[in-house]
Amino acid sequence: MSLIATTPEPPYYAVVFSSVRTEGDQGYGNMADRMLELAKQQEGFLGVESAREELGITVSYWMDLDSIKRWKQNAEHLEAQRLGHKQWYSSFKTRIAKVERDYGI
Amino acid sequence: MSLIATTPEPPYYAVVFSSVRTEGDQGYGNMADRMLELAKQQEGFLGVESAREELGITVSYWMDLDSIKRWKQNAEHLEAQRLGHKQWYSSFKTRIAKVERDYGI
Repeated sequence: MSLIATTPEPPYYAVVFSSVRTEGDQGYGNMADRMLELAKQQEGFLGVESAREELGITVSYWMDLDSIKRWKQNAEHLEAQRLGHKQWYSSFKTRIAKVERDYGI
Repeated sequence: MSLIATTPEPPYYAVVFSSVRTEGDQGYGNMADRMLELAKQQEGFLGVESAREELGITVSYWMDLDSIKRWKQNAEHLEAQRLGHKQWYSSFKTRIAKVERDYGI
């Protein structure tokens, strides 16, 4: 699998999740793996890209807003969001954006 | 400066630049620093977030499409784009997206 997501012609949606982690793993690694696996199974999921230094950025791509809404309400994902809020992230920001144009090599 | 960009209420724009580097620096580090400095001086620039592992993701935030267009056409930036295409990146994708909603802690 390429590191850069293969996405269809725009328009489609991007969820940009920027985060700063707290100290220690606290079960984060396993949950992150599980969430990635689960996201890939969701209807409307198009791809994901991720990198972390001190700041982590994960961009997931989705067919439409309904797909994003369903993923946000997924029961296992709700639990991950709860733990993220409570213990894994000292700060985060989620931005939901409509991709209007893309290009690359 | 916070690692997570402080952006205004949506709508605003995000440019998601995902890239894989070639081997060696080849002047990349200096140019990346210069482009960051220069981007911050542009009208309509709102903030930037960046992380790199094997994949690099830089998300810059802009007031509107005109600001993004002007930045893309900036003379120094055009030269950086040319070198990026020619020698710094083995692959990249740029996605221009309208941020419709955001939330965080």
